[in-house]
Amino acid sequence: MPTVRAESLKGLIARVLAAAGAPRPAAQLVADSLVLSNLKGVDSHGLVRVAQYVADIEAGLVDACAEPHVDRQDALAVVDGRRGFGQIAAQEATRAALELAPGGISCATVANVHHVGRLGEYVELAAAGGFIALAFCNTGPAHGRVVPFGGSRPALGTNPIAYAIPAGTHAPIVSDFSTAAAAEGRVRLARHSGASVPAGWIIDANGRPSRNPYDLYAGGALLPAAGHKGYALALLAEILGGAFAGAGCASTGSLPGNGVVLFVLDPGTVRPLDTFLAEVDRVIESIRDVPPAQSVERVLLPGEPEARVEARRRAEGIPIPESIWNEFTEVAGRYGINVAASPT
Amino acid sequence: MPTVRAESLKGLIARVLAAAGAPRPAAQLVADSLVLSNLKGVDSHGLVRVAQYVADIEAGLVDACAEPHVDRQDALAVVDGRRGFGQIAAQEATRAALELAPGGISCATVANVHHVGRLGEYVELAAAGGFIALAFCNTGPAHGRVVPFGGSRPALGTNPIAYAIPAGTHAPIVSDFSTAAAAEGRVRLARHSGASVPAGWIIDANGRPSRNPYDLYAGGALLPAAGHKGYALALLAEILGGAFAGAGCASTGSLPGNGVVLFVLDPGTVRPLDTFLAEVDRVIESIRDVPPAQSVERVLLPGEPEARVEARRRAEGIPIPESIWNEFTEVAGRYGINVAASPT
Repeated sequence: MPTVRAESLKGLIARVLAAAGAPRPAAQLVADSLVLSNLKGVDSHGLVRVAQYVADIEAGLVDACAEPHVDRQDALAVVDGRRGFGQIAAQEATRAALELAPGGISCATVANVHHVGRLGEYVELAAAGGFIALAFCNTGPAHGRVVPFGGSRPALGTNPIAYAIPAGTHAPIVSDFSTAAAAEGRVRLARHSGASVPAGWIIDANGRPSRNPYDLYAGGALLPAAGHKGYALALLAEILGGAFAGAGCASTGSLPGNGVVLFVLDPGTVRPLDTFLAEVDRVIESIRDVPPAQSVERVLLPGEPEARVEARRRAEGIPIPESIWNEFTEVAGRYGINVAASPT
Repeated sequence: MPTVRAESLKGLIARVLAAAGAPRPAAQLVADSLVLSNLKGVDSHGLVRVAQYVADIEAGLVDACAEPHVDRQDALAVVDGRRGFGQIAAQEATRAALELAPGGISCATVANVHHVGRLGEYVELAAAGGFIALAFCNTGPAHGRVVPFGGSRPALGTNPIAYAIPAGTHAPIVSDFSTAAAAEGRVRLARHSGASVPAGWIIDANGRPSRNPYDLYAGGALLPAAGHKGYALALLAEILGGAFAGAGCASTGSLPGNGVVLFVLDPGTVRPLDTFLAEVDRVIESIRDVPPAQSVERVLLPGEPEARVEARRRAEGIPIPESIWNEFTEVAGRYGINVAASPT
């Protein structure tokens, strides 16, 4: 399996996206976003997406030259992605929300976009700027098919939720998870390794509980996380992204990409900022002081597992499975870019 | 088991709280809130709380005469409950947020209060006014002890999340759930009936997974819903209510009551209101059209189970377990109120 340095990969992906028709800054922004997912260990939202993005540019499903339009209304920024890359619109939305948040609360919506990528990126951006952020995203059937609680057929996407909270002396708390019981990628992994999946992850094509990973790919579906709780959260994301932001809904078949709603809070509004940050530090320390369960090294804060992977991959490079590397090499080759000749 | 009409119960509870020192309007507001929980079937937040509230008034833990102070800052309303009943402050906060929301987004925070009761009440109030609402609440150890994911000792409360979304022709979607794997009351029920609890609900005093409900009451703890996902949501509620709103944090031992953060969105801001409401209706209908799983009657929207109980209990009265009725009768008797003589 090749191991590639993040900077090399960013450059390569940007060249491919630019060759496929994206203006150079847009190509670089999207490449940086994808590689950031790989750095965090969220490989489902990294290099593996390039072939899909290029195919979607070629098919006219994404306008690689689109510039998002931002409409600011008091504490709300409404972003129309104009059918362009979701990463560009979502970053623009985050910046607009951060401009509107000081001294209180703001919100940004994103609609009419292709794929926004890893939702956690935008709340991290907000926390890096010193703000609390909470984001909901609805996704189409391409990103996983999830049954409503009590149902036997999928109607919702894997609709992620992400948040980030700045701390004082500690790194921000960052969380980004799907409202499904498990990521589709984990079921795929079980299928590859011949293992069965835990009860509560999937149903088969007849709507019956299953532990056979093949059933997901034979017309089955994912179950929501924690039953009615994950279902309720998925539905909230569906309506915030689909009906409020206006991206359209997977459940009604009207969602071409992602819809996002981002809430941003200025942590220094209700109490002095230092008081807030010190309290977050104390919470982090109290949680870290909890004795771990058997066979657990220590209790982690949300975001710590990803930060560990990131530190390692920044130092050692990003391991890329052969099949994904070959697919990328092939797509790049079609646009006259020789990946093998590039330094990795 | 006595069955009591909601209106009778409201009157009785209000008389008891007033006799214990609450001004009559405050007593009535809190009584109405508690009985509304009973009507919805959320009995853990109903009549059973009266004895605790009265004891807390007597112990000086709640100021029954406190009037909350509301500080409005652009889109944010900061409510100081002045150590009073949480229901009064949370209703005040909701009204303030609804006044600030038209045309965009608003937020309200509640701190320095006793118990806010059922969180769903406040988002329902917002949806009844035509707004989308999302609320987070952090709770102290009295309301359940939940371990962080990977831990062997509790550090968080059962920290609920609630939201409500208005629809066009359908009833609003209303969801209100704890971020723990199960409500403590369900473990208590299993203990009463001699059943074991499902795997993943609790750990014993040594931090080991357990299916014996007695272990929860012998120094054990609740697990978070869906592992790291419920943990992440509980932590978000802890920091929003505890550090942002300033109620204090259970994890650091500084939380005397509840802290709440409520987000309110005007659904007609990004798109015309009718477009939003029609899309929500279509989502509701699409979800209802999903064929149910085996032995499920039909797929329900969040809030439908509670609405069914409410319709029945409004018509037939609220069944009260003997032990809770006796406790209430005793507390009322201490204040010279003869519950038995009241019409039920």
